[in-house]
Amino acid sequence: MTIKKSVCVLGVTGSVGSSTVDILKAHADKYVVDAITAHRNVPALAKAAIELGAAMAVIADESLYEDLKSALSGTKILVAAGDDALVEAASRPSDIVIAAIIGAAGLKATLAAIRRGARVGLANKETLVCAGDLMMAEVAKYKATLIPVDSEHSAIFQVLEQKSIDKVDRILLTASGGPFREWSLEEMKSVSPKQALAHPNWDMGAKISIDSATMMNKGLELIEACRLFPVPEDRIEVVVHPQSVVHSMVEYSDGSVLAQLGSPDMRTPIAYALSWPERIRVDVARLDFATIGQLNFTSPDLKRFPALRLAREALRAGGTVPTVLNAANEIAVGAFLGGKLTFLQIAETVERMMNRIAASPLRDLDQMFDLDDMIRRETLGMIKTGL
Amino acid sequence: MTIKKSVCVLGVTGSVGSSTVDILKAHADKYVVDAITAHRNVPALAKAAIELGAAMAVIADESLYEDLKSALSGTKILVAAGDDALVEAASRPSDIVIAAIIGAAGLKATLAAIRRGARVGLANKETLVCAGDLMMAEVAKYKATLIPVDSEHSAIFQVLEQKSIDKVDRILLTASGGPFREWSLEEMKSVSPKQALAHPNWDMGAKISIDSATMMNKGLELIEACRLFPVPEDRIEVVVHPQSVVHSMVEYSDGSVLAQLGSPDMRTPIAYALSWPERIRVDVARLDFATIGQLNFTSPDLKRFPALRLAREALRAGGTVPTVLNAANEIAVGAFLGGKLTFLQIAETVERMMNRIAASPLRDLDQMFDLDDMIRRETLGMIKTGL
Repeated sequence: MTIKKSVCVLGVTGSVGSSTVDILKAHADKYVVDAITAHRNVPALAKAAIELGAAMAVIADESLYEDLKSALSGTKILVAAGDDALVEAASRPSDIVIAAIIGAAGLKATLAAIRRGARVGLANKETLVCAGDLMMAEVAKYKATLIPVDSEHSAIFQVLEQKSIDKVDRILLTASGGPFREWSLEEMKSVSPKQALAHPNWDMGAKISIDSATMMNKGLELIEACRLFPVPEDRIEVVVHPQSVVHSMVEYSDGSVLAQLGSPDMRTPIAYALSWPERIRVDVARLDFATIGQLNFTSPDLKRFPALRLAREALRAGGTVPTVLNAANEIAVGAFLGGKLTFLQIAETVERMMNRIAASPLRDLDQMFDLDDMIRRETLGMIKTGL
Repeated sequence: MTIKKSVCVLGVTGSVGSSTVDILKAHADKYVVDAITAHRNVPALAKAAIELGAAMAVIADESLYEDLKSALSGTKILVAAGDDALVEAASRPSDIVIAAIIGAAGLKATLAAIRRGARVGLANKETLVCAGDLMMAEVAKYKATLIPVDSEHSAIFQVLEQKSIDKVDRILLTASGGPFREWSLEEMKSVSPKQALAHPNWDMGAKISIDSATMMNKGLELIEACRLFPVPEDRIEVVVHPQSVVHSMVEYSDGSVLAQLGSPDMRTPIAYALSWPERIRVDVARLDFATIGQLNFTSPDLKRFPALRLAREALRAGGTVPTVLNAANEIAVGAFLGGKLTFLQIAETVERMMNRIAASPLRDLDQMFDLDDMIRRETLGMIKTGL
């Protein structure tokens, strides 16, 4: 009999969260569920808590505390609400924390998990984008284990040989290119939120879908890769690969390129974060190469996808600049979804904010949180007054 | 300062051997060369021995002893000749033996290296095809380390996780399909040796080039893979991939497919066999995915490439049958190159021999060697009297 590992899921009702629930249900012999959290979706949170036999359920929106309490009445599941309760959920002594809260909101809870030396399956890329160096310093200080859950970074993690880390010549980060891969700039001017939300390969949340359409998603992943893996920025290349079958690759000095491939299903990288360094069975569609027939590769077009260029610039500048990029982007994406910005204005907004705010070193997380708040307010203001 | 590893190269003047020489010359700070051997090419052997500062040079053809002696006069390099000297070369206490003698001739020397527990970089696939179970039993008994040098098996070895060996769902062995991948059976009837020797992707020896054209090479590799890796035969699939960029793949139960890719250059797998578990720099062409543009995959056609079907049948039957397949094939390939058989008659000859000889278990290596001799004689006789 193997000892079960206990798992906390931050953001259990989102896209990554619900895939995590699937895996935990299928492997109830290996995992026991401690705390799970959600932003506002009380019914889904309550359902997951009951199905998984969770010890604790946390709703981030404090005004929904009573709703959750009543949805879970008659169970022994602990109920809590609010940002502090999110941090509490991550602070409980679970073996593994799946950090799947979207955006900067997940940062504090993720940090709490890191600071108790937990294994953290990180689906929240903003954590590393906003404060990558600081976060990695905390990971090292508290001997936490960070396992990326993004399919691309999981791919890199799976084929990165610790013994040959100094022999990595290139990391090749693959990008689907999004739904507008072959559109002209002129055509992209009139993109609607509905068009941008229809990702060709992945079924994802709204924020990530828009980021994928602008390729800011790949830009954030580029920054994330540079934080996660000890490889200089100029050795990380983006390769457009429309089929999203090759999830990323690592090239070594002997000419070997190791790649991880799979169906576009987040359950594979999530399962890997749970089972690492071993593997568990996951009921995902298998790749049939004869049916796939071909895999294509092209270079990204930085003219049509300026977000990718901006992310590379933010990475090179370092310090506060990636934080500015990320915060401005979150607000701009929200404004696009709300009809306040056109599609091309998302990257324009980010670039304007990057130009407006002077770069400086990032001293600590408090500074980062203050900056993040300030940029969001300024970006909102800029959008309100017109670009 | 690192301690240099000593290396023996069996078959130093062939395709794999001369690539090994390149790497050893480039990394003289890491490797010292002990014995090297060749079949009949005295000038190339002598040149390599002097360039590498080898301790011993062995020519397999005894009649060339004096030629080698005189070519190396004035050096301190030990000179020997004959089959026993090949075994002696492998028996000397080098750290690594690169076993690159083509065909069954290399088997005894490879076995000598295994029986002293050496690390063996195995480029001789016939060793595992003829007597795979027996050889692997010797590897286990003498705690030798077998590292495949075939590009496909090196690929599998590089992405096969020892911790998850029981979680391997499939091994996907890629095949270029050879120069006649898209030819009809009718067109293949009149293939000349010259046409068959022109492999689209790899610069290889004559025997392997013909095997690649009939796809017997992939059949032998299928058997080899089944011996090398503890995966049942029905979990090893052949996928045709004309570009030979993906060298093979392993699929795990979580849906992850790990692949090794590279330029068609044997120096990468040879370097890996030398440097494992780490890596060394090799000056091979790097993959440029935007230039490559696309990678294609199809299923193999067993009607047009019956050698692949025969190899699968031999693998399933086990015992003496793979030995029969291999010996009959070597003779038939020689007969084709000598104008005694047509291209399609190569597989026909192999199939007739497989049908003629009753399958039985393979008891020991002596029986295997006797059988190998017998099959060669019978195949020659059959070719002489007409199919």
